[in-house]
Amino acid sequence: MKAQGRETRTIWLEPDGRTVGIIDQTRLPHEFATLRLTDVAAAAQAIKSMQVRGAPLIGATAAYGMALAMNRDASDAVLADAATTLLATRPTAINLHWAVEAMRRHLAALPPGRRSDAAYERAAAICDDDVAINRAIGEHGIAPIYATWRKKGERGKVEILTHCNAGWLATVDWGTALAPVYRAQQMGIPLHVWVDETRPRNQGASLTAWELREQGVPHTVIADNAGGHLMRQGKVDLCLVGTDRTTANGDVANKIGTYLKALAACDNNMPFYVAAPSPSIDWSLGSGDAIPIEERDPREVTEIAGRLADGTVARVQVTPDGSQAANPAFDVTPARLVTGIVTERGIAPASRDGLAALFPEFRAAVRA
Amino acid sequence: MKAQGRETRTIWLEPDGRTVGIIDQTRLPHEFATLRLTDVAAAAQAIKSMQVRGAPLIGATAAYGMALAMNRDASDAVLADAATTLLATRPTAINLHWAVEAMRRHLAALPPGRRSDAAYERAAAICDDDVAINRAIGEHGIAPIYATWRKKGERGKVEILTHCNAGWLATVDWGTALAPVYRAQQMGIPLHVWVDETRPRNQGASLTAWELREQGVPHTVIADNAGGHLMRQGKVDLCLVGTDRTTANGDVANKIGTYLKALAACDNNMPFYVAAPSPSIDWSLGSGDAIPIEERDPREVTEIAGRLADGTVARVQVTPDGSQAANPAFDVTPARLVTGIVTERGIAPASRDGLAALFPEFRAAVRA
Repeated sequence: MKAQGRETRTIWLEPDGRTVGIIDQTRLPHEFATLRLTDVAAAAQAIKSMQVRGAPLIGATAAYGMALAMNRDASDAVLADAATTLLATRPTAINLHWAVEAMRRHLAALPPGRRSDAAYERAAAICDDDVAINRAIGEHGIAPIYATWRKKGERGKVEILTHCNAGWLATVDWGTALAPVYRAQQMGIPLHVWVDETRPRNQGASLTAWELREQGVPHTVIADNAGGHLMRQGKVDLCLVGTDRTTANGDVANKIGTYLKALAACDNNMPFYVAAPSPSIDWSLGSGDAIPIEERDPREVTEIAGRLADGTVARVQVTPDGSQAANPAFDVTPARLVTGIVTERGIAPASRDGLAALFPEFRAAVRA
Repeated sequence: MKAQGRETRTIWLEPDGRTVGIIDQTRLPHEFATLRLTDVAAAAQAIKSMQVRGAPLIGATAAYGMALAMNRDASDAVLADAATTLLATRPTAINLHWAVEAMRRHLAALPPGRRSDAAYERAAAICDDDVAINRAIGEHGIAPIYATWRKKGERGKVEILTHCNAGWLATVDWGTALAPVYRAQQMGIPLHVWVDETRPRNQGASLTAWELREQGVPHTVIADNAGGHLMRQGKVDLCLVGTDRTTANGDVANKIGTYLKALAACDNNMPFYVAAPSPSIDWSLGSGDAIPIEERDPREVTEIAGRLADGTVARVQVTPDGSQAANPAFDVTPARLVTGIVTERGIAPASRDGLAALFPEFRAAVRA
C-alpha cells in the first residue's frame, strides 16, 4: 500500500540480499522511519518493542529473523537458539509460532550449507503468501460491505467500525480487516471508518488513522469508549476487526477491548466480522479460554506518547504517582458474538463446523 | 474527604463570605491547586472548562454562580441572564438545570434587596444537601458490597470496577458511586477498585486514582478496553458508576463508555449498580433516548494532557495531522442492563415503578 505516496510493503529484503528492512512503527504517525535488521536479536527486539506488530507481520519478521540467524551461522545449535529467542518475544499471536515452526522444520531437514539460502527463500515465500492471503480476504470481505451498500439504497456511506490496527501495517501488505475496506474503496463504494484509538498503545489513533489517511479513506478517530454509543445512534453499519489468534471453535483473541465492541454490536443487531488469515487460526485449541493473554508493561497505561507543540515526540504521565496500573493486551471474544470469520477461502460461520468446512485439512488437528 | 491529608470539600465559601473557592480539577493529579470564583462568568467558565465537573458539583457550582451574580446586581435582568449563562455551559447533566431552576424560582419570589443573602444561603443549603444525599447513598450502597464480601466467605477483597469519576471530586463531598466504597473502607471491608482511565479526558486515571490514593483505597488503573476481559476472568465482583442524568424509566446517561461496561457486566452475570442522587433523576423524561448528548472538542481525543519527565504538564498529539476525531461525552445505558439504582432513599430497581416507589412525590411528573 501507499506510504508517503509510494507503494511499499512493511518488510522487505534489502538490496544486499541479506539484511531486512522494516518500517519502525513506534515512530508513526508523526514520523515515517525505516530500520535495517541485521541479526536475529534485532528481529526479536523489533517484535518485542513493537517496531513491527500485528500477528501476520510478527510471523513474517520472525521468518526473516530465522534467515538472519542462518546467515551468520547455520548450525543446529543456532537454529534451535534462534527459534527459542523469537518464540519468547510475544505470547498471544499464533502466527509467530506458526512461522518459526515452519522455518525450523524446513531448515532442520537441510544440511547446514544449504540453510541460509533456503531460509531467505522460505521467508520471502511466507511474505508473498501473506500478501496473497490478505488480497483474498479483501475479495471475500467485500461481500458484507457491498450488501450493506445495497441495503442502504446505495446512498450515503458504508459506516465501518474497526479496533486496533489490522491494516497493511499489521501484515506484509493489504492488511486483514482493512483489506476489504481498501478493495471496496477501489470498487468505488463510499466508505467511512470509525477508528477506535485503541488504548493503551493507540494503534488505532496512530497506525490505522495514518494508513487510512495515506490511502485517502475517510475516517474519524474516536475514544474506545464511544463505539457503543455510535452503534446505538445508528452511526455504524458493521464492525470489522483482525485477530491475533482464533481457536478452532471460532473464539477470537484480539486486541484488548474487542470483546466490548462485539457485545455492543450484538446488542444492536449489527454484523461483527473478524478477518482471520488461516495462519492465525490455532487448530490445536478448542476454545479461547486456553489462549495465553500477554500482560504488558503498566507504563503503557500510565504514560502516553505523542507529539508536543514543538514537534518533538515525548511521553506524558497521566496517572498520579503511586497509583498502579494493569495492562492485559488482548481479550477473547466468544464465537457466539461473531457474525462471520473472513478467511482467504471465504467467510466461515464462527464455529467448529464452519471453520472446518473451509479448512478440511485441519479437521484432524482439532481437539474436541 | 481528604486532599493532601486535610479534610476538604470541593467547593466552599471563602472567609470573605462572598467569593467561592474550588479545587481546579484540570490540574489534578499532578498538582493540587485551588481557585477563587468572583463572578458568575468565572463560575460558568469553571463548569465549561471542567475545572469543576461531575453532575452534583456542577449543580453546586451553578448555585453559587447565581449567588455571585446576585452579589453584584440583584435585578430581574441579571437573575435571568445568570440563569441563561449557567444553563448554556453543559447540556447533559440534569443537576445543572435542577440547581439553576431551584435558585431562580427561589430568588425571583424575593425583592431584589433580599436576593443576595438568600442566594448564598440557598447555595450553601444545596451543598449541604448534596453532602447529606451522598452520605445516605454511601449507607445504602454498602449492602451489595457487604453481600459480596459475605458471598466470598470474607476472604480476599471485594473487587469493584468504576468508570470515570463519581467520587467526592464529582460532588461537594463523599461522592456518589465512591461513597459506598469509602463507607465500606471505614467498616473494614477489604476492597480493591479497578479504575477505568476514562478516555478521552482521563477522569479515572487522573481524578479517581488521585482521590482513592488520597483516601488510601487500593486501586489499579486500567485502559477502558480492559474491563470486559477482567470480568470474563472473574477479577471483578461488581460495577458501581455514577450518572449525569437518569430518566424516569431507569435509563442512565453517564460518561461515554459506561454502556460498554454494563453490557460486559450483563454478559458475565455481574451486578451493575448506578449511584444516582435524586437531583440527577430527570422525572420529565420517559426514556434515555431523549437525553441530549454533549459533543465536546475533538482535540480532547487527538491530544492528551500529562506530565513530562521534567515535571511540567503538557499536551501531546496522538493522531496524525489531517485525521479528524469525534467526541461524544456521554452514552445511555438502558435500564435493562442496570441491576439497581442507589439513591439517598435506598436501592431502586431500574424501572419506572422502582424509582417511583422510592420517590412517590414525583410520580405525577413522570410522563408515560
